[in-house]
Amino acid sequence: MPQGETFHRAVSQVLFISQAYALLPVSNIRSVDVNQIRFKWRSPRVFYSAIILLLNLCEFGAVLNHVSSVGVTFHTSSSLALYVVCLLEHLFFWRLAFHWHSIMRHWHRVEQLFLSVPYRFYGEYNMKRRINIVVGLVMSSALVEHCLLLANSCHLSNLERTQCNINVSYLESIYKWERPHLYEILPYHVWLLPLLEWINETIAYPRSFTDCFLMCIGIGLAARFHQLHRRIAAVHRKVMPAVFWTEVRQHYLALKRLVRLLDSAVAPLILLAFGNNMSFICFQLFNTFKNIGVDLIVMVAFWYSLIFAIIRTTLTIFITSSINEFEQKIITALRDVPSKAWTPEVQRFSEQLGNDMTALSGNGFFYVTRQLVLSMATTIITYELMISDVINQATIRQRTVYC
Amino acid sequence: MPQGETFHRAVSQVLFISQAYALLPVSNIRSVDVNQIRFKWRSPRVFYSAIILLLNLCEFGAVLNHVSSVGVTFHTSSSLALYVVCLLEHLFFWRLAFHWHSIMRHWHRVEQLFLSVPYRFYGEYNMKRRINIVVGLVMSSALVEHCLLLANSCHLSNLERTQCNINVSYLESIYKWERPHLYEILPYHVWLLPLLEWINETIAYPRSFTDCFLMCIGIGLAARFHQLHRRIAAVHRKVMPAVFWTEVRQHYLALKRLVRLLDSAVAPLILLAFGNNMSFICFQLFNTFKNIGVDLIVMVAFWYSLIFAIIRTTLTIFITSSINEFEQKIITALRDVPSKAWTPEVQRFSEQLGNDMTALSGNGFFYVTRQLVLSMATTIITYELMISDVINQATIRQRTVYC
Amino acid sequence: MPQGETFHRAVSQVLFISQAYALLPVSNIRSVDVNQIRFKWRSPRVFYSAIILLLNLCEFGAVLNHVSSVGVTFHTSSSLALYVVCLLEHLFFWRLAFHWHSIMRHWHRVEQLFLSVPYRFYGEYNMKRRINIVVGLVMSSALVEHCLLLANSCHLSNLERTQCNINVSYLESIYKWERPHLYEILPYHVWLLPLLEWINETIAYPRSFTDCFLMCIGIGLAARFHQLHRRIAAVHRKVMPAVFWTEVRQHYLALKRLVRLLDSAVAPLILLAFGNNMSFICFQLFNTFKNIGVDLIVMVAFWYSLIFAIIRTTLTIFITSSINEFEQKIITALRDVPSKAWTPEVQRFSEQLGNDMTALSGNGFFYVTRQLVLSMATTIITYELMISDVINQATIRQRTVYC
Amino acid sequence: MPQGETFHRAVSQVLFISQAYALLPVSNIRSVDVNQIRFKWRSPRVFYSAIILLLNLCEFGAVLNHVSSVGVTFHTSSSLALYVVCLLEHLFFWRLAFHWHSIMRHWHRVEQLFLSVPYRFYGEYNMKRRINIVVGLVMSSALVEHCLLLANSCHLSNLERTQCNINVSYLESIYKWERPHLYEILPYHVWLLPLLEWINETIAYPRSFTDCFLMCIGIGLAARFHQLHRRIAAVHRKVMPAVFWTEVRQHYLALKRLVRLLDSAVAPLILLAFGNNMSFICFQLFNTFKNIGVDLIVMVAFWYSLIFAIIRTTLTIFITSSINEFEQKIITALRDVPSKAWTPEVQRFSEQLGNDMTALSGNGFFYVTRQLVLSMATTIITYELMISDVINQATIRQRTVYC
Repeated sequence: MPQGETFHRAVSQVLFISQAYALLPVSNIRSVDVNQIRFKWRSPRVFYSAIILLLNLCEFGAVLNHVSSVGVTFHTSSSLALYVVCLLEHLFFWRLAFHWHSIMRHWHRVEQLFLSVPYRFYGEYNMKRRINIVVGLVMSSALVEHCLLLANSCHLSNLERTQCNINVSYLESIYKWERPHLYEILPYHVWLLPLLEWINETIAYPRSFTDCFLMCIGIGLAARFHQLHRRIAAVHRKVMPAVFWTEVRQHYLALKRLVRLLDSAVAPLILLAFGNNMSFICFQLFNTFKNIGVDLIVMVAFWYSLIFAIIRTTLTIFITSSINEFEQKIITALRDVPSKAWTPEVQRFSEQLGNDMTALSGNGFFYVTRQLVLSMATTIITYELMISDVINQATIRQRTVYC
Repeated sequence: MPQGETFHRAVSQVLFISQAYALLPVSNIRSVDVNQIRFKWRSPRVFYSAIILLLNLCEFGAVLNHVSSVGVTFHTSSSLALYVVCLLEHLFFWRLAFHWHSIMRHWHRVEQLFLSVPYRFYGEYNMKRRINIVVGLVMSSALVEHCLLLANSCHLSNLERTQCNINVSYLESIYKWERPHLYEILPYHVWLLPLLEWINETIAYPRSFTDCFLMCIGIGLAARFHQLHRRIAAVHRKVMPAVFWTEVRQHYLALKRLVRLLDSAVAPLILLAFGNNMSFICFQLFNTFKNIGVDLIVMVAFWYSLIFAIIRTTLTIFITSSINEFEQKIITALRDVPSKAWTPEVQRFSEQLGNDMTALSGNGFFYVTRQLVLSMATTIITYELMISDVINQATIRQRTVYC
Repeated sequence: MPQGETFHRAVSQVLFISQAYALLPVSNIRSVDVNQIRFKWRSPRVFYSAIILLLNLCEFGAVLNHVSSVGVTFHTSSSLALYVVCLLEHLFFWRLAFHWHSIMRHWHRVEQLFLSVPYRFYGEYNMKRRINIVVGLVMSSALVEHCLLLANSCHLSNLERTQCNINVSYLESIYKWERPHLYEILPYHVWLLPLLEWINETIAYPRSFTDCFLMCIGIGLAARFHQLHRRIAAVHRKVMPAVFWTEVRQHYLALKRLVRLLDSAVAPLILLAFGNNMSFICFQLFNTFKNIGVDLIVMVAFWYSLIFAIIRTTLTIFITSSINEFEQKIITALRDVPSKAWTPEVQRFSEQLGNDMTALSGNGFFYVTRQLVLSMATTIITYELMISDVINQATIRQRTVYC
Repeated sequence: MPQGETFHRAVSQVLFISQAYALLPVSNIRSVDVNQIRFKWRSPRVFYSAIILLLNLCEFGAVLNHVSSVGVTFHTSSSLALYVVCLLEHLFFWRLAFHWHSIMRHWHRVEQLFLSVPYRFYGEYNMKRRINIVVGLVMSSALVEHCLLLANSCHLSNLERTQCNINVSYLESIYKWERPHLYEILPYHVWLLPLLEWINETIAYPRSFTDCFLMCIGIGLAARFHQLHRRIAAVHRKVMPAVFWTEVRQHYLALKRLVRLLDSAVAPLILLAFGNNMSFICFQLFNTFKNIGVDLIVMVAFWYSLIFAIIRTTLTIFITSSINEFEQKIITALRDVPSKAWTPEVQRFSEQLGNDMTALSGNGFFYVTRQLVLSMATTIITYELMISDVINQATIRQRTVYC
């Protein structure tokens, strides 16, 4: 590519795959030209996404119906929360789809600055490769998690079937185990299984993908801050004309505007992703206090799921906070500007960098910086300690007897 | 109105209605001329408010007497707290009434700046309509809440009457249920009911109205910050003479002075409103852990009350923090001032905006910004988790047996 | 006084009285000339203080001996803590006494600036009257508390004597009740009682006096910041020559140096006073959960003690944080300096005020500002909630049976 | 030494001793010339360290094996954590060893600035003596702790042997008590004891040494900040030429770069050391709630260990935060620069000092300043209160019956 790599082209493949899971139903997402992206109500993608959303809503209704008859327990409330989160994620991606073409066009315009001469030499950040590696790693780990949970279900439902002598086939027992809320309404058919499994995957997919998506945006923005930093670092201790600093500051302002635009666009996704990750880790850590059972597969699935959630959350914070890290580096670089070149323009730039916070934030509620890891960890530990003595008394027990 | 909309005129109607509930007994509150507002000791409004306050104090005395004979329990202490909060709110509105005329005159003087030529074109914030919508929505929701609680009382008192075969009339049973502290002192008369209901409403009204009042003030201030921001945004990237920035900064300083004046005037109301909302939400969330009962009307009243409190508090924070939001926008706009126009005056303005915090605050105890939502939520969750294991042991039980 | 009021003269009377309780044994404390203050090892005050300290240490030894035989319980550990805190306060006042003459001389030098012409007109803060009122109020309230606790002891010891038919005189029973740790070692004599009561008072006195002392220092410093603020406020919106601002900034720097000197001198007292107040309030609030007993005098003594501690702590924070409040006011006043007079000197002053924190601090551990009230309250509430469920299980009971 | 004291020479002895415990296997560590330091894979030190690490890993394997057979309890999990921490510390020191030569060379280059004329006169900080005193005190206290724990083991194992009539020799009983995880695998031989004791010491040593190492680095950096501060303090209130301030600022920037380099090099050690200290103090404080037993030696060992940990942690924070303290002092000194000498260069220096944070930090997660003591104390108290009611119910008991 002569004119360098744009974010749109780096991320289009990832978004195309996620459209298979009914997320972000935007037309021409793989188009080379960013102007061809648009949201059309009458496109097959929108139609497909709408159907999936409808099916998800139906299943959620069934779950609600099931819960209201069974009663709200610790277990059902957590699976309810899972459904609510995934439906909200679907909705927020729809909302994002409406604005995706204008966001991409704005981003494209800003990127033109960074694909021209001075920055071109500092393009070694390799946005596309990073995006592919990160998404590949996280989503394949998510696939492994999904398979483990599935294997877990098969194993447990089979145990129940054989131990309790229930007169159903192997597949039907899986169906009953996995979807107790549907079993009463929808009689079992073999062809139901792949359909339901697909719906299941469209529900499970967004949980990991939202983190991935935030990481992609983080990488896309960091690539530009990286170039800006490299350009300033290249003139380290050199006396540059005022016009150089004016230009650099203009480009920095353009980047800030882009960060603000994206921040307001993905704010609900950020709040949802971090809230969900945190409560999921709390919930799973809380489960470790109970004896989880001796089945190897149950153990593996449980621990894999917990460790994957911790790593994924930490990775998300580290990658999206790299914007902030590059800004810190730019501040440090400005400290070395020689006295002669210390014009009001540079001072203004330095003051702005010192005062403003550049980071993705859930619409200003909290900033995604590196310190977030520590404060999340402290909160999680505090909450764990708080509920730890509930265990000694609570009536939450593992259902180890299957009938 | 040729000279534009003043805060006094936008809010006068709302305050006039609240005077019916004995709050803010200021004379000539609906007067067009702000100079006619005054606090007269010998006006019928003051007389009426004084009587209502006296009756409230009497009822509070009866409650104290009742509690001291029954003993302090979880339930009685919460109803005691309700009375204390409402009496304090009445007192703080009296205190505000003394200063209302000078506050309004100061506000009026500041507003003259923003009703003249350059700002006139940016008056599209429509303060009056916003105030009316917000107050209308919140107060009618509060009315629904009040009716639900009343229906709840009627229902439960009737249940008690029929199940326990108490030989009293329907209305008398309501009287006994609603006002156990008066039942022993004051024998039942039919004509007592409307009077007591009116006193009850003057006690219930300030709880929601204080939030509304804070929102009104927030809207009134935000309207001016909005105009200031629009004026700066209108000269985006243009080179303006120094005199322009001097003027803008003068107006900003006038607004800051107004914010400080109002902050010190309504500080007790802010502290009371936020403290009360937070403890009420904590208390109600804590009640959700217990089984609330199966009566539909009890359930609806309980959940409506809880959700209304959460929404009202969040809305109050969002609206009053919009002053701060506009200031952030002004800072951002100043970043785009071109290098040529970057005079010491603009720099001084920029530094001041970066260092000072413009927001309503409970007299400097905490600032009402958007982040407050997150920190309140964290505190509430922490407190809930802390007291959650008291439930397993505590002797707090629902009185489901009525005799 | 023609040349105005100095801190030394305003506080000398208070310190003279406290010397009767063996605190701050400095010679010539009431001298008009600040140069005559000195610490002499061979003065009667040092001798007297040393004897009192020795007696206190002896009693502490007796308490330690008593506790080691009885065992560490909730009750004994709290009375141990009381002794430790009071002994440390005695020691820290000794340490302060060594440096008192140099501190006073430095303070006197700085004060000369504020007693000369321009500031003389702004001396209406009336440091001496404020100090006398605050100390008078707090110490007489402390006296009432002490009498209540004494009456409480007399009452309870008498109850024990009559109910259990112990064959001791009234006074001996008081002796036994108040000083169980001495009763075993030292046989009862009538003339012991006044001596022990005096020692008791020298132990109880510093607890309230430390807060008073911090308030005095806060008032003394605030008086000067007040004058500085008034001087700046007097030239509001006037164009002043650069030399004016240079002088004002010099005086401000002199005050800052004084604040730093005092901060490092009283840091141990601040840490001790705040730590002790906070733990005392936590402990007493925790006791409210238990039933305290039905004796009126016990109730009154308990609640008076708790409410006095809360009010005293809040007052201490409000008064010592007034330094910070005045600084905020100076910042605000600087915002109104007209553009013409906005020289680098004023800008430097403004930047310094914006960046540095001027407040008493426990050697940099925490700053005594108004926000401290909120954070202390939150911490206390959190700790109360945490230990609240210990009550349901703990074996801490009131000893209502006296034999 | 004519050219003054370098950090390398001040710390080389301490590092040489620690190499005996297999830490930091760098060749020529005691060399006078900093360029001779290098990490050689084929040196005897690396060989020795590798063997020790291997033996530690083997023992860790044995512990893992033992724990998996005995089951995870409160006690075993804490000893597991100890092994994991010490192994990680060994690994992090290996990692540091790779980079030690480049770090030392960079440090040496920066130090040349501070050993030349103007700074030479301010060299009274006496880095080497401070390092020797601190390391001497802490490591000899650690030795006492180790001996106490050993004596404790001997005592308890002997008690078990005599009380339960186990037919083993005195030494074998110690072996069995100290290393239950090896006893099953490795039969007892007399010559095993010294070897195992040595391995034991290489495991115990890094726990205290990591804190010492951080203190050494803190002292080494503080010495230079001290000199910088003294140079600025020496020109107090004098009008200095701009070139003076340019030079001072250049030197300050060089120091900042050094701090950043070291911070990223020792970040894992900081995180590990603080995390370990905090959890150890929490754990030991938690143990005080249980009755520890009446054996004097057990009591002494327990309390010594707890108090030593608290003092060591506090000391580490105070010494490493002294960098930050000196920076605060430099800011204060800059406030006194006279108006005439207030050039843009000084202002830039002042702004940088005001905005940037200079302190060791665990890679930006938290800053080691004096306030850290307070926040660690608050967190520890909070966690203690949280788990305090677990004690009343938990099944954690002291094993006072030895058979």
